[in-house]
Formats: sequence, C-alpha cells, structure tokens
Amino acid sequence: MKAGWHDISVAIDGDLPTWPGSPGARSELRMAIAWGDDANVTQLSIDVHTGTHVDAPRHFVEGGATVEELGLDPFVGAAVVIDTGSASEITASVLGEMEIPHGTERLLLRTKNSARADMYRVPFDEGYAALTLDGAELLAARGLRLVGIDYLSIQRYTAPPDVHRALLGAGVAILEGVSLADVEPGSYELICLPMRLVGAEGSPARAILLPRAT
Amino acid sequence: MKAGWHDISVAIDGDLPTWPGSPGARSELRMAIAWGDDANVTQLSIDVHTGTHVDAPRHFVEGGATVEELGLDPFVGAAVVIDTGSASEITASVLGEMEIPHGTERLLLRTKNSARADMYRVPFDEGYAALTLDGAELLAARGLRLVGIDYLSIQRYTAPPDVHRALLGAGVAILEGVSLADVEPGSYELICLPMRLVGAEGSPARAILLPRAT
Repeated sequence: MKAGWHDISVAIDGDLPTWPGSPGARSELRMAIAWGDDANVTQLSIDVHTGTHVDAPRHFVEGGATVEELGLDPFVGAAVVIDTGSASEITASVLGEMEIPHGTERLLLRTKNSARADMYRVPFDEGYAALTLDGAELLAARGLRLVGIDYLSIQRYTAPPDVHRALLGAGVAILEGVSLADVEPGSYELICLPMRLVGAEGSPARAILLPRAT
Repeated sequence: MKAGWHDISVAIDGDLPTWPGSPGARSELRMAIAWGDDANVTQLSIDVHTGTHVDAPRHFVEGGATVEELGLDPFVGAAVVIDTGSASEITASVLGEMEIPHGTERLLLRTKNSARADMYRVPFDEGYAALTLDGAELLAARGLRLVGIDYLSIQRYTAPPDVHRALLGAGVAILEGVSLADVEPGSYELICLPMRLVGAEGSPARAILLPRAT
C-alpha cells in the first residue's frame, strides 16, 4: 500500500465470519498446474453480501436500483470516519454527540466491532454494534449518499429490516464489512469499487481510504 | 461517473464472452422478496478470469504470488494508454513505434478489440489482438508493473502460455478484459481494485481511469 493509504477491505478466506444460513465464499481450483494443466484457474462461489460488500436499494426494496445502476458516485469521494466508542446501538442520540461535518456525503462508522476485530473472528457474533432506526432516519435526513459499518450488517441481528429500508429507500447506499481498526476518525477520500454485476442487489467490493488532499 | 472519469470495467451479465470451457459467471437469487423473503440475496459463481480481471503470477507460475499477496501497488497509480491500431499481433516492433514514456509503470493496450467492442460480443472470438512473446519480453525488460489489454487474454488464442509466463515470471501483473473504446491514448491515473481473494491466482476487478493531475 502507498503511504497513508488504508485498505479497509477484509481478506476473503475460510476464516471470514458469515451471516447465519449464508454459504459465504468458496474457492475451488477448476484447473491446476499440479494436475498437468497449463494454468491455475479458480472458480469462486460467493454470497455477494460476504466480507466487505455494498448493498443497493434492490436488497430490501423490490424494483429498487441495483449496484450496477447506482454507478460509482455513491462509492467514490469524500468520506468521514467517526468513532462511536463502546455503543452497541448507534442511535440518533449517539450520532448527535458526534462531529459530522456539514455536507458529509459518505459516513463510515468505526464501532466497537473494529476494536474487537469482529470481521476477523469466527463464528458469526450476534452481538455486533449496529445502527438503530432513529439513527438511520437521522442520517437519511442529512442527505448522505453512503453509510458504512464495520460488521456484516448495518442493523442489529434481531432487528426487523427497517434500518436497511430507511437507508436504501432514501437512496443511501450501504457499505458493510469494512475493517476500520487502523483508521483514525477524520476526513478521507473513499474509493470503494464494487463489481459491475448487472441485476444484483449487492456486490463484494474492495475499498480503500486515502488521506484527504486539503 | 465523475467528469473525466472512465469506467473501463465491463458489466457482468449473460452477454459477456467467456473463454472456451469456462463457466463464466452465473448469478442466482438465493432469497427473494418475491418469494416472501425479507430480502433479495444473490449467490454469484464466477471463474475469476471472467470479464475485467487481473492475473497474478500464480496463474501460470506454480508457487507464484497470489492476487492478495501482490497488494494494490501494481494496480493503482500512473498509467499510459497506447493505441496499437489495426495490429493483431502486438510485437516488439509494433511497440517500438509507440511513444511509451520513460518510467511508465502501467501500460494499457488499446487494440482493435476495443474498436470492435469485442468484450461486448458473444460468442468468444479467437481472432482477438494480443501481445507476442517478443512484445512481452520488451515490456518486462522495461520494468513495467502492469500490462493491460482489451480482451480476455494477453496472448493469442493458439499461442503457448509463454507470453503470460514472460510477464508474470518477471513480476508484471496483467489486467485483462478492459474496455478502452472511449479512452483516448495518453496519461491517466489507474485505479484497479481486485477482490482480496486469499490464495487465488486471479480476481475480477473494477477498474477506472482518471485524468492525470499535472
């Protein structure tokens, strides 16, 4: 990595926690030099919500925009990282105490999940920190284009999908499963590139943070 | 897309040409709102050499570096796009006539494949333009970190894998399946982000070109 850059994507391997019921990611060699083939060729089968990934409206809104339809504007540009400390529920009240600069378009929540390195621990942990409905409504009302969080879902495990719906229904894209342990709160340039999957409601993504040119 | 940007990744759908024998990419809904589920959830099965993708040394060099081991340095930074005109074989002689600035680290070949929009046409076309062995050796000797081309392979269909081996063996990463029809030759900033697939010899990638800050 170049100086000052952060790769906030998690490595995709067998140690990745996966959502209960999800097959996660499986890689298999389809051709192998060791078998006498010319080349090594991997076939990957992946739930597109595995590891670091984005959600488009279509994930929870029937007929909503797909990842490919969103283009890259929600995913590339100025972003702010805030630290929500030990809170398990990121409520409107918790967010109200944070400094979120006026005009913020992309907000990444560094929660206790990053401190616990939850994206690197199996099994899946139901007790992750997440956004509440009033928190989501506050962020949607602020006109954000993207909200990111450091575990596999933006909403609590036992919550109804109203948090996803409040964000996606308001046109706010979601970035989940980032690793923010090494990232200080502050202003960055986010470059998050999902795959260009036609028709899909989500996609694995590689995401990096660059220091903000000021 | 932001002004002046080019998304040089191809959309992944059923119209994508695939390498003979490759299953390409298949998306299936595993959960669907239309079936009464809370969410739409796609499972993707993909040959990692489908569409716009990168090759790491492990593709043709047993024990060579994987995509994840390469990190992002080969894939992000200054890049030069050259147009090789109507040539089907990009030889050392063809390259010798091109202006490739001293110190070029990443070189993208805009060939007749882009003009014919080959990445958007099925079936797979064996007659695509590609790099020859002497062309590959010339580029490897120049110390490039990455070479890109606008069809599914950097080498001719009927060629032995010596072109891949000459590049990958010299530590030159390969970017294949980009779409350069709308990109003028010149200097750019390449941001190519493959998935962080542990152990894999290649990966799908989203790649964009930005105008060079001068």
